[in-house]
Amino acid sequence: MSELNRKSPERLQDRVDQVMQLLEQHGLADALVRGDLIDNVLQQQDQTELQRRLDELHPADVAHILESLPLAERLAVWQLVKYDRDGEILLEVSDAVREILIADMDNQEIIAAANMLDADELADLAPDLPQDVVRELMDMLDAQQRERLRSALSYDEDEVGALMDFDMVTIRDDVTLEVVSRYLRRFDMLPDHTDKLFVVDNDGRLQGVLPIKKLLVSSPDALVAEVMAADPVIFDPQAHASEAAQAFERYDLVTAPVVDATGVLCGRLTVDEVLDYIRQESETEALNSAGLREEEDIFASVWKSVRNRWAWLAINLCTALIASRVIGLFEGAIEQLVALAALMPIVAGIGGNSGNQTITMIVRGIATGQVQVAHGQRLLRKEAGVAVINGVFWGLVLAVIAFVLYDNVALSAVLMAAMLLNMLLAALMGVVIPLARLRAGSDPALGSSVLITAITDSGGFFIFLGLATLFLL
Amino acid sequence: MSELNRKSPERLQDRVDQVMQLLEQHGLADALVRGDLIDNVLQQQDQTELQRRLDELHPADVAHILESLPLAERLAVWQLVKYDRDGEILLEVSDAVREILIADMDNQEIIAAANMLDADELADLAPDLPQDVVRELMDMLDAQQRERLRSALSYDEDEVGALMDFDMVTIRDDVTLEVVSRYLRRFDMLPDHTDKLFVVDNDGRLQGVLPIKKLLVSSPDALVAEVMAADPVIFDPQAHASEAAQAFERYDLVTAPVVDATGVLCGRLTVDEVLDYIRQESETEALNSAGLREEEDIFASVWKSVRNRWAWLAINLCTALIASRVIGLFEGAIEQLVALAALMPIVAGIGGNSGNQTITMIVRGIATGQVQVAHGQRLLRKEAGVAVINGVFWGLVLAVIAFVLYDNVALSAVLMAAMLLNMLLAALMGVVIPLARLRAGSDPALGSSVLITAITDSGGFFIFLGLATLFLL
Repeated sequence: MSELNRKSPERLQDRVDQVMQLLEQHGLADALVRGDLIDNVLQQQDQTELQRRLDELHPADVAHILESLPLAERLAVWQLVKYDRDGEILLEVSDAVREILIADMDNQEIIAAANMLDADELADLAPDLPQDVVRELMDMLDAQQRERLRSALSYDEDEVGALMDFDMVTIRDDVTLEVVSRYLRRFDMLPDHTDKLFVVDNDGRLQGVLPIKKLLVSSPDALVAEVMAADPVIFDPQAHASEAAQAFERYDLVTAPVVDATGVLCGRLTVDEVLDYIRQESETEALNSAGLREEEDIFASVWKSVRNRWAWLAINLCTALIASRVIGLFEGAIEQLVALAALMPIVAGIGGNSGNQTITMIVRGIATGQVQVAHGQRLLRKEAGVAVINGVFWGLVLAVIAFVLYDNVALSAVLMAAMLLNMLLAALMGVVIPLARLRAGSDPALGSSVLITAITDSGGFFIFLGLATLFLL
Repeated sequence: MSELNRKSPERLQDRVDQVMQLLEQHGLADALVRGDLIDNVLQQQDQTELQRRLDELHPADVAHILESLPLAERLAVWQLVKYDRDGEILLEVSDAVREILIADMDNQEIIAAANMLDADELADLAPDLPQDVVRELMDMLDAQQRERLRSALSYDEDEVGALMDFDMVTIRDDVTLEVVSRYLRRFDMLPDHTDKLFVVDNDGRLQGVLPIKKLLVSSPDALVAEVMAADPVIFDPQAHASEAAQAFERYDLVTAPVVDATGVLCGRLTVDEVLDYIRQESETEALNSAGLREEEDIFASVWKSVRNRWAWLAINLCTALIASRVIGLFEGAIEQLVALAALMPIVAGIGGNSGNQTITMIVRGIATGQVQVAHGQRLLRKEAGVAVINGVFWGLVLAVIAFVLYDNVALSAVLMAAMLLNMLLAALMGVVIPLARLRAGSDPALGSSVLITAITDSGGFFIFLGLATLFLL
């Protein structure tokens, strides 16, 4: 094998980079956008070269290039992609970019692209396609495919059924491994990720699974029933995808059967889908915690970005306004002792930071199942302990600094007390809020950071300014 | 197959829950801690029952139970786990819990547990083991295993070499598939996740891979060289693990060969390791963004938690102190117009929120390779556009509210101008900071949220109070 044949990820990335360079160096993207390639022989050559290179790339790499290009260039390159690859590329791009690409295709193009896809892949695309196209596609499918598409579409985005595919290789349990091997040899290709065969009875009910590993090492004369694993990990199509993700991680699965309530095998879950799901979830979590509603197309229009961001800004403004009104209650105190205005953000800020630490811990503990409502007291004691240590220590540090600045012992004492109390408030709320939500059956994670920050901001201002009013004025 | 035989994740979780209940209901954990089980026949029965159930659980499930138990109960249950499973369970628990479990074992126990593990697994444990135990283990290994352990230990935690295992099944390219099949049948078991065999020459250099899928569907008379894929995706042991993670996701890999600079096959990367890595990375990211240094044992001592959290609190206090000093500069202005004190946190807060939105977008774009330094101007224009729209809109809303509260047109105008300017500052810094760091070769993500918040806090106070001083007083 020549060195050049090997595909290390760097080399694969190199190829992607080369395409990007080709686009930039020759002003190709520009020319494509202007549509004046036909007149220019040199650029025509470039275009052919570009097309050839695009054809060599993995669909996921083409998707990456499309995501990395500004709007006009993106659509120009999209035109160059061979139509029979459109479908698989559409599956790989982010939702925001997919929307743009589909908007650029006419119905015939969409149908041609969709025709290359399996029912489960179609189901992934369907929500982004025009209604009439979906209807037309439905009509073109054979009965089994239509049934599968309908079934896949019937599940929520977060259900196992929405992630499963239908590429199961099924066998009976009363044949020998020799027969199974001969049966497999009749395939041109086995489905991706086939690490086990599904053993079903005449009614399609799952009897067990035959790991390929076992097929390979066992005697050809053995019966499937003797060799198969009769107790595979199975999933319900209506189970939450996060449950499947956890099971794939814990039990190191590559594929797993999806079985309905009657025991009938209805699909297959593969690790690549689960991996995508996990990545997407952590992506969403990270975006939400930064106040973004969803993944943004880097090159989206200003208006699209505004829409993606306004909700969190609005919530943030509301909480800021409440905090502002709390300060407003104490304007008299601030007028008398203006140092309060300079010190109050410290009390609020440190409370927010410490509250976020606590609530993040608890929310994650709940997500992994390590924290239950019954643990409340114990956790409360612990977090209160942490808050007291941190409050006293950092409170002292700040009190000393404040004394150096303002030469006022009473003010320093109030600052320290306020820091300690606000951190205790943060610890209390950081434990109580997620556990109360858990008990109430709602999602402990949703907006937890915004909520705790709102409480520690307003609470911090109130505690600090309130103590100051009581003891300093 | 009986219904009971099937292992849906809920049923698996049920078993875990049953063990937890057994521990709680009978006060078993308490009794275990007190060590008075011997005297009590009833509890003795419970203990046997508990041990039996623990033995039936997957190591990952036992690890989960250990993580979910308070310290004393955790150690009591740990004593009940059969010693030959200690090793695999230690591999599954979180770092914080592993430390505690190992501290509870004497050297002989550790060595017995470690003896059950492969070289790559040992390498994962080694950093947490006492030095003398590691030396002793080294001496007990055969030459090949010792070499592998040494090699695995030589890589950074974030390198492909640290994630790889050595469970490769290798074959030559000049034999028929029939011969390969017969060779495989000599194994009792193939390594987990074996979806391809590695084709090497006499010097161990990788020639290609033979996907099991192809082995199954191809003619037994075909030669390996004819059927194998000569251009597999390969990894360098020194490549960054995140690169491997990206490639596994993009190309839907299950296993991939790790090949050194001379072309020699030195290990294998599997999707379960990659999945763990991805999960861990996103975990770390989420924890860091909440100001936690690392994953915390929910039941860790107060002191451990304080240690895990103090660094971010300290940084936070410094930035809060700077913001406080900025306010201090304008104490005269606040004394004259105390409404400023109530309104200034709004300007700072909204700037922080909007800056975090921008910087998160850019940092993620850089991480996926979609954003390059060359995009700076375009992104700046776009983010500035978003900031102007948001600034004008929310600024107006706030100006109206402020007018209702304070009946002061000039104050409202200053508030609106300050919000707009601070959001522009946030957009500018949100784009410039990560791109400057990218150009300088440092990590654009590290502490980005803290940095942008510090800037928009201090900047927001400065802009608002500065404008107020210029125009209102």
